Amino acid sequence: MLKTKGYAAQVAKAPLAPYSFERRELRDHDVLVDIQYCGVCHSDIHQARDEWGGSIFPMVPGHEITGIVARVGSQVTKFKVGDRVGVGVYVDSCRECEECKSGLEQYCDRLAQTYNSHELDGTPTLGGYADKIVVNEDFVLDIPENLPLNATAPLLCAGITLYSPLVHWGAGPGKKVAVVGLGGLGHMGVKLAHALGAEVTVLSQSMKKQADAARLGADHYYSTADPETFTKLRRHFDLIMNTVSAPLDWNAYLQLLKVDGTMVMVGLPDRDIPVGAGSLIPSRRSLAGSMVGSLKEMQEMLDFCGKHDIVSDIEMINIQDVNAAYERVIRSDVKYRFVIDMASLK
Amino acid sequence: MLKTKGYAAQVAKAPLAPYSFERRELRDHDVLVDIQYCGVCHSDIHQARDEWGGSIFPMVPGHEITGIVARVGSQVTKFKVGDRVGVGVYVDSCRECEECKSGLEQYCDRLAQTYNSHELDGTPTLGGYADKIVVNEDFVLDIPENLPLNATAPLLCAGITLYSPLVHWGAGPGKKVAVVGLGGLGHMGVKLAHALGAEVTVLSQSMKKQADAARLGADHYYSTADPETFTKLRRHFDLIMNTVSAPLDWNAYLQLLKVDGTMVMVGLPDRDIPVGAGSLIPSRRSLAGSMVGSLKEMQEMLDFCGKHDIVSDIEMINIQDVNAAYERVIRSDVKYRFVIDMASLK
Repeated sequence: MLKTKGYAAQVAKAPLAPYSFERRELRDHDVLVDIQYCGVCHSDIHQARDEWGGSIFPMVPGHEITGIVARVGSQVTKFKVGDRVGVGVYVDSCRECEECKSGLEQYCDRLAQTYNSHELDGTPTLGGYADKIVVNEDFVLDIPENLPLNATAPLLCAGITLYSPLVHWGAGPGKKVAVVGLGGLGHMGVKLAHALGAEVTVLSQSMKKQADAARLGADHYYSTADPETFTKLRRHFDLIMNTVSAPLDWNAYLQLLKVDGTMVMVGLPDRDIPVGAGSLIPSRRSLAGSMVGSLKEMQEMLDFCGKHDIVSDIEMINIQDVNAAYERVIRSDVKYRFVIDMASLK
Repeated sequence: MLKTKGYAAQVAKAPLAPYSFERRELRDHDVLVDIQYCGVCHSDIHQARDEWGGSIFPMVPGHEITGIVARVGSQVTKFKVGDRVGVGVYVDSCRECEECKSGLEQYCDRLAQTYNSHELDGTPTLGGYADKIVVNEDFVLDIPENLPLNATAPLLCAGITLYSPLVHWGAGPGKKVAVVGLGGLGHMGVKLAHALGAEVTVLSQSMKKQADAARLGADHYYSTADPETFTKLRRHFDLIMNTVSAPLDWNAYLQLLKVDGTMVMVGLPDRDIPVGAGSLIPSRRSLAGSMVGSLKEMQEMLDFCGKHDIVSDIEMINIQDVNAAYERVIRSDVKYRFVIDMASLK
């Protein structure tokens, strides 16, 4: 077993604190990743505080992992020591179900998420707030040479969470895409939709982030506090990426979709939202949801980001500051993603 | 002007009663249809009773019209006197907007619905509970020779309302389609999905209609009163056609969709329904709506029904019995559509 240092919550809502544990010895197809950086995702907080229920403790959060391959199992063919790699939201899947076979393993019923989940053999998974991780090579991604490992870490969750639905629902030249909410997810949505060639509009509560949105690649910006926004933009968008997990009036946003338009939820509100069939029927609109992306899409996304020089806007922290960072994430006080420098742990 | 006999509601909730009015003289591209039959759609009742608001009175309902061409305008090329024709839910559209130009005129913002709406020149429209109607030839459909005009009438609304989304969302061989609710819309959904080659399951409140569902072409039948239905059929369907306008628990039904599955609302509940993003995100599901179909699809649907000998299951009534029929529709006491024999009016 491999001695590992990390930060864990011992029980729900406990502050994260130093925690020593063991990773498995490398199997034939495993890769040992020396973790350099790990992003702080809002879902880390929800899960560490057991806000979605069913959390497994002790919990080492973290699923936006980048690092260097330190060792490889005897049968590994995809990576070698020294490679720059990433690990995202899941570390294994059953490989047998309809979803796995069709390359949509992110929707596998037995998905082994990177933390707060179980390996297929039942072992609880522990995440990336740690100095190392052991992952089957099929679930490790290659990071383009030109992308810095720290600002690339958030691509592994925030990036793919936007990239996958943008591509799936056809964002590109000639398409009008709205991004609702300009946070960790939203700022990646703007960068990616812009690079994909779509006309990008940010819909944000206030006008405060307008200059930032333009810098990130947005063509237009509207405040959703202004009721006129909803009349002016009626039937305007092909695609709305809704990154907001606060309970918005979805009917109002659905009215902004053209015929055959789709609003995709990538933020997860903690309660049900009332929806009128009358918001969907008269323009054949859809309300959909999307969860991260497949391994194939993750590699595609990383290569796309390499080509377009896209990374996350980040603020670096030491692991000792993670609890304070959580409080700032909750206040939306970060532009736009905290990344933990794992050197601070060693 | 053409003297016309019909049945109208003079004010909201008034019983329908004999009403004489005038249709316009034929313009160059108009067709005069001698109405033989008109179906009774649940939406006739909602609108005659102003349950959706904004109703225009006096109201002559009816948008499932079949009849014989009695006269044609000087420039009409598509029809001749004696042709068997149908008129559906709308009689004109702007022909200039994005939707009209792309052949999705049913979603035109200025759509002239067959009744309770306005022609493009502002004249209120009066529907098919009448002895004749004048309609631009582009909005008149050709009825295949082998289909009886009475049982074909409901295809013009109930039929196309199911056919369009079934085809749009790919119902066909290898696809599992559920039809929720076995009424006027649902029974057409079963017939059409079966003829399209899909594996069809009826989800109905009780087991009462099981034999009927099998006769209509359903492969499977489950009662939604049995909680086990929702565990047994989890992640089972590619497509759910929800024809029920009562407020169901949509989250429960969304759980029955496979990855990338869609639930399409074609029934219009009178209130908003709570939806959880968690019902959509973990399997990339969609909740959508669809409204009737395009002219092209309507003709396609009629030809498809001609080829497969599909019509509606109907109960014929005289126009004098329409108010009693409304009460029975509200009690779901009809298998599966009332059709008014317009000979009773003449």
